[in-house]
Amino acid sequence: MRRASFTDMNCSVAQSLEIIGEWWTLLIIRDAFFGVTRFDEFSDRLGIARNVLTQRLETLVEHGVLTKVAYQDKPVRYDYRLTEKGRDLWTVLAALRQWGDKWAAPDGPPVVSTHRACGHEMTVEPVCSACGEPVTRASLSLHRGPGARADSPLPELP
Amino acid sequence: MRRASFTDMNCSVAQSLEIIGEWWTLLIIRDAFFGVTRFDEFSDRLGIARNVLTQRLETLVEHGVLTKVAYQDKPVRYDYRLTEKGRDLWTVLAALRQWGDKWAAPDGPPVVSTHRACGHEMTVEPVCSACGEPVTRASLSLHRGPGARADSPLPELP
Repeated sequence: MRRASFTDMNCSVAQSLEIIGEWWTLLIIRDAFFGVTRFDEFSDRLGIARNVLTQRLETLVEHGVLTKVAYQDKPVRYDYRLTEKGRDLWTVLAALRQWGDKWAAPDGPPVVSTHRACGHEMTVEPVCSACGEPVTRASLSLHRGPGARADSPLPELP
Repeated sequence: MRRASFTDMNCSVAQSLEIIGEWWTLLIIRDAFFGVTRFDEFSDRLGIARNVLTQRLETLVEHGVLTKVAYQDKPVRYDYRLTEKGRDLWTVLAALRQWGDKWAAPDGPPVVSTHRACGHEMTVEPVCSACGEPVTRASLSLHRGPGARADSPLPELP
């Protein structure tokens, strides 16, 4: 079953999901952040069907989220490593983790974070890049940007 | 085709994806943030098959991300509104949007944000909840938390 594509949608959320929104993909990326690089290790940790894993990894390589680096010649075997584009997905994983910690972890967070610089257990907080104050959705207004087309998902605003 | 469930995984990313990781779901939530509440409007804006939209909305209601509020009696018709749990997904959408703006928007962002309080065009920046300094994945160390089971995805750490 080929699912609908979001490629033509004029929306960065849709474009991101086109690359990383398939079932399993963000868990593969999570494990890449934990240092997993080998096909068999992804397969063992996730319990994912090998044909699905192959397809997901190839999509991520194709979009430059992972890069394949041969670590063995005969037969050739690859490490899958996060690129800068892939490492930038950390904010997405952090947001998903914190939402799950708050709303879907009745026994408390399975994983907690410490900020190395200050030494405290912490969460990631969203602040404004301009003034540094905490932000929520309600504190922002959205506008058409330079890449907006007529079919931008932004509704007409007053 | 029923996809594998992440329910048994001891990971808040997996638990979040179990609720919102299906194809289309985050675009439905995006549109809910834009003020869309009616089935037909979701359907028109997204171009999603009605049976798929029905299933996605029901899953979100079942998990308390959306709530159904009748706006008409005969026949009964519902508005779908974000709950507090749903509004908390804003950080996930913001992270996805910014990643797409950076890596998948060659003509520039389709949508830009202004912080109402300071008046500047801005992005959402992740900072440490304890000290307020900017953080990246590399500046954090992860540890087993109170909800960790033996099968926590966190690898053994030195």
